[in-house]
Amino acid sequence: MNTIIRRPTRQIRLGNVAIGGDAPISIQSMLCVPTANVEAAARQIAQLEKAGCEIIRFSVMNQADADAIPALKRVAAVPLVADIHFDHKLALAALEAGIDGLRINPGNIGSREKVAEVVRLAAERGVPIRIGVNSGSLPKELVAKYGVSAKAMVEAALSHVRILEELDFTAIKISVKASQLPLMLESYRALSREVDYPLHLGITEAGTLLAGSIKSAMALGILLNEGIGDTIRVSLTADPLQEVMVARRILQNLGLRRGLNIISCPTCGRTRINLMRLADEVENALAEFADRPLTVAVMGCVVNGPGEAREADFGLAGGDGEGLVFARGEIVSKVPEDELVPELLRLIREHFNHE
Amino acid sequence: MNTIIRRPTRQIRLGNVAIGGDAPISIQSMLCVPTANVEAAARQIAQLEKAGCEIIRFSVMNQADADAIPALKRVAAVPLVADIHFDHKLALAALEAGIDGLRINPGNIGSREKVAEVVRLAAERGVPIRIGVNSGSLPKELVAKYGVSAKAMVEAALSHVRILEELDFTAIKISVKASQLPLMLESYRALSREVDYPLHLGITEAGTLLAGSIKSAMALGILLNEGIGDTIRVSLTADPLQEVMVARRILQNLGLRRGLNIISCPTCGRTRINLMRLADEVENALAEFADRPLTVAVMGCVVNGPGEAREADFGLAGGDGEGLVFARGEIVSKVPEDELVPELLRLIREHFNHE
Repeated sequence: MNTIIRRPTRQIRLGNVAIGGDAPISIQSMLCVPTANVEAAARQIAQLEKAGCEIIRFSVMNQADADAIPALKRVAAVPLVADIHFDHKLALAALEAGIDGLRINPGNIGSREKVAEVVRLAAERGVPIRIGVNSGSLPKELVAKYGVSAKAMVEAALSHVRILEELDFTAIKISVKASQLPLMLESYRALSREVDYPLHLGITEAGTLLAGSIKSAMALGILLNEGIGDTIRVSLTADPLQEVMVARRILQNLGLRRGLNIISCPTCGRTRINLMRLADEVENALAEFADRPLTVAVMGCVVNGPGEAREADFGLAGGDGEGLVFARGEIVSKVPEDELVPELLRLIREHFNHE
Repeated sequence: MNTIIRRPTRQIRLGNVAIGGDAPISIQSMLCVPTANVEAAARQIAQLEKAGCEIIRFSVMNQADADAIPALKRVAAVPLVADIHFDHKLALAALEAGIDGLRINPGNIGSREKVAEVVRLAAERGVPIRIGVNSGSLPKELVAKYGVSAKAMVEAALSHVRILEELDFTAIKISVKASQLPLMLESYRALSREVDYPLHLGITEAGTLLAGSIKSAMALGILLNEGIGDTIRVSLTADPLQEVMVARRILQNLGLRRGLNIISCPTCGRTRINLMRLADEVENALAEFADRPLTVAVMGCVVNGPGEAREADFGLAGGDGEGLVFARGEIVSKVPEDELVPELLRLIREHFNHE
């Protein structure tokens, strides 16, 4: 089978989540409401946690955002990361306010004293720092020297790493995101040859829900399959809850996480039932079981369906106005089309109640 | 950069499309209307061709389906493939009717004479055969011996290959589809070590539009990135036009095909504009340019947008009620929010008119 051998990385701790080493690959997302709007931010944190998000990041652009941190820490069960650009005072404020992680590039903070001050407080509080390099904001001198390339991305990341290492700070994770797949892949691969810090994977400016999911699934899928990546974020121009759902599917598909797997056959000339509607219905109805290790099949053909989907724990196969509900390839009942989904759900609920 | 070295395969010809060797990776889909309904089938063929589908397959389940082939051949610009199960008479009928390709497993047709008859006529007509093995319909004896495994999948494929080779027929392509990613990956890798026939990649029962696209993007992305795969089909429980769109995105993302690339930043606490709506609008409006090599950025921030997206040919960056339109990082104009998309489209159309 396709066995993934994860690249050995150091392990760091971000609040109650371990990242790197043999820790499970964790799922991150980012708030899309203003951090200072505590009520909206707290609501989105709760939704993201329910969806399976394990690390939540938000922008800290000003003091009002930093002031919201204690209230958000009180409601959050998962670690919170402050995303800070340039301003070392905001980094200090976030640390004082009890943040679990920082995303800040030390080379952009300013004087060595300012950096040292932030790093000292982060070390005291046991707070890790993510260095986040983006292809869109590479330093001009590196672009002049190497172009927008993996070499420039890795050099940029290493320049920030060196600043932290000189201050004896090694609770580091790193991202080198790009919007183009080939550049992103090569940057992470090159970086993983240079350092053993845990890596945060992502594609930037990935795009809308479907297009961005396709691009992210390919990029993260290829790297994770090569053993690269310790924590992931799917960035979409869409609701962050969908980022979490897509991230979970990526991990599940590679067998890196257990969970609900719905298989359904393509519609073809043989199909005599509204398969798209049925598959959507089943998918929506089973959302509550998203983290259960279960395979459910939605098949369009009563003749081949149960056999082709014999690996599924449960399934339905639609025919001409009526269909079959089956479990591990064995037919359980034959019902009219509009009772197929309720009958399938009844069986699955019964299964979980008996567990 | 991430250079893909394609595995060397023999080249076969399917109508006017070359598959394997140095031929571009081609995109396939399948009709979801009854083949015998010539009007509906012809309409869907036209739609699929317009969407960029390069090979179109349909079920031939009975003589009425076979009888539709000449009419469909008259309207189709791309090669047509008949999908046939077991019935050698239907294979002969499809060949007589002028089909360009067959998908049939010779081991399932019946007597050696029947196979020889089909193969002789296919050879005469220069029609290639795809052997299609699915994890859901593996022969019982192979499952008993090897379980549902890559070993069983490859053995099943090779047993069909041997039948054709014994009849001196080598215009073969092969698929070994599964619905589970690890099994699918390992089956194609193992098969590619055994034979140099071109491979048709796909995941079966991939699922609904989003879930199935994620799974297919990962599976096809990983294999194509390893140089495996000569023609692809994304199978979705969705409109086949979307299968073609997803397939094209997969190839584009890996740099295996040129085309429109829309990048857009994730919504975050910094965004002061309805970025999701804007990105969707731009994506829809530019559908007509899907095959043009163009990168368009939809950014949520006037300060960083033009710089971060300087690799884009064109872009817009939204601000607070107004925004910027830019080209290669240089600002072209500043307009109210509701004129952003029209202004961007005007620039892009002008660009193509001057080409």
